[in-house]
Amino acid sequence: METVLTGITTTGVPHIGNYVGAIRPTVIASRDKSVKSYYFVADYHSLIKSSDPDRLARSTLEVAASWLAAGLDPDCVFYRQSDIPEIMELTWVLTCMTAKGLMNRAHAYKAAVAENEARRNRDPDKAITMGLYSYPILMAADILMFKAHKVPVGRDQIQHVEMARDIAGRFNHHFGETFVLPEAVVGENTAVLPGLDGRKMSKSYANTIPLFAPEKRLRKLIMRIKTNSQEPGEPKDPDTSALYAIYRAFCTDGEAAAIRERYRAGIAWGEMKKVLFEYLNDQLKGPRAEYERLMDAPDYVEGVLCRGAERAREVSVPYMDEIRRAVGFRKLG
Amino acid sequence: METVLTGITTTGVPHIGNYVGAIRPTVIASRDKSVKSYYFVADYHSLIKSSDPDRLARSTLEVAASWLAAGLDPDCVFYRQSDIPEIMELTWVLTCMTAKGLMNRAHAYKAAVAENEARRNRDPDKAITMGLYSYPILMAADILMFKAHKVPVGRDQIQHVEMARDIAGRFNHHFGETFVLPEAVVGENTAVLPGLDGRKMSKSYANTIPLFAPEKRLRKLIMRIKTNSQEPGEPKDPDTSALYAIYRAFCTDGEAAAIRERYRAGIAWGEMKKVLFEYLNDQLKGPRAEYERLMDAPDYVEGVLCRGAERAREVSVPYMDEIRRAVGFRKLG
Repeated sequence: METVLTGITTTGVPHIGNYVGAIRPTVIASRDKSVKSYYFVADYHSLIKSSDPDRLARSTLEVAASWLAAGLDPDCVFYRQSDIPEIMELTWVLTCMTAKGLMNRAHAYKAAVAENEARRNRDPDKAITMGLYSYPILMAADILMFKAHKVPVGRDQIQHVEMARDIAGRFNHHFGETFVLPEAVVGENTAVLPGLDGRKMSKSYANTIPLFAPEKRLRKLIMRIKTNSQEPGEPKDPDTSALYAIYRAFCTDGEAAAIRERYRAGIAWGEMKKVLFEYLNDQLKGPRAEYERLMDAPDYVEGVLCRGAERAREVSVPYMDEIRRAVGFRKLG
Repeated sequence: METVLTGITTTGVPHIGNYVGAIRPTVIASRDKSVKSYYFVADYHSLIKSSDPDRLARSTLEVAASWLAAGLDPDCVFYRQSDIPEIMELTWVLTCMTAKGLMNRAHAYKAAVAENEARRNRDPDKAITMGLYSYPILMAADILMFKAHKVPVGRDQIQHVEMARDIAGRFNHHFGETFVLPEAVVGENTAVLPGLDGRKMSKSYANTIPLFAPEKRLRKLIMRIKTNSQEPGEPKDPDTSALYAIYRAFCTDGEAAAIRERYRAGIAWGEMKKVLFEYLNDQLKGPRAEYERLMDAPDYVEGVLCRGAERAREVSVPYMDEIRRAVGFRKLG
């Protein structure tokens, strides 16, 4: 059976753009019983950029609650990275197998160096930590630890999966066939939602609609979505309308056709906003209530993650023993 | 009580130069009940240069047996690094706290780059692994994990202890007082023994006398030690004699004075070799028998290391929990 592994970064409460682009397709995939699925909250990765422990802890809860509320199949193995110490052991073993030159070519590192050069900093490595520099090795450990065949990623992460392949190949060459060579899978559905101002919805533009915004706030935000100055009654183009794009990301084909008809018939922007709010609210109120329930029950979320870690360690503990023996860490005698 | 931590590299069977320069002073220090002592077999460090698992495993046994046979106090905490998974977790936490610029300045890395440049390799990082590049972070984790105040090291390792201080200071600054700032201690007794050819005894010169060489071989090797062409009866200078230097490293002050007298009286080189052999053999036959017993009882050595790991983990497990909480890895709820 094929194994699929998905890492979830702990960047706080998701917005509806994250939901449509990443969470929903993953949740749907989690119901596929023909593959073995692992999902993890990547808190060791988050540490690279974190110096606020309370925020890191809060973020883990928010992210885990969000994915569970969004419908992640609890039958999957869903764990917190930092609960699997074998990943850290494997990281060092792989560190010894990784050429420094490989890390020099990592996009994130190169981008940081380019920024230092653009600012004419004398030290091209200024303010770059070893965490940023070597995290492709941690990512390789995440992937190789669970013998993942497929790793669904965004385009910017393809290189890291290829690095994991490289490192695994080098290890297998030196110590015998031990690791599965993983493959990156880039979703076709790279749906990008417009934000309140019409640009791509993104935290850095501060134009997002939080996935679990309370009803009142959801309404307020939708009322703020930018439209053009066309009057009620004028036929409107759905394909240049942010309101339509968001609606379309949630509705069925039939519903889309019906709304396009109303655009042609000159629906007022105010009316369309009301339609969108009611439609979204109807779809999100169930998950939102579940999210609120989970945020009020951190013990329950902790329990889910601990059970996930137990199941993950059923794999990682014996496999790490095997890897240790392969490199020469053996019981004497 | 002060804590002292000593790492032991797994470079196979030690020679009498290692014994005099490193093992004996450490063994004597291990009997000092006024400090808390930790000793560990640094097998995770060995992995950096190893692609021979059997040799790595064998080397761990040889090194552990050597130190025990040489008299390391079994009341100390004596463990194998790879038995302490918390060290690997701490390594990643510290990786996130380490400036890349700090690693760029590490001697071992700079030496490897200089060698590439001398060979006119286009890539200054050619054949350099991330293990070589980032091992000062692993060494920092070794030291900080056990709150070591003092780390006895050779001169070439002072920089690494200073790096551990730097990293610990940065962590304490960001996350609150967590780590003890360690200090390097460079032994005054940097005794260097001459080898068979009169040059410094060193594996790279193939001029060594193995510490536990069987009696016959020990005799043969001592008979091969280089002398000058002075005849029996001619007065000889002990201070330019390798035979005397080796004898002096083992004998008492009174014995040294007596032998110097015999040099002045013109002792024959053959006679001095016999004296040295008998003296060394007498001192080493006990430890040699113990070494042979231990090499034939790997289960016993394994037991010693496992008990050491248990005692070390009494410290590392709760302390790593504390460190995890400090950075924000906390149980939810």
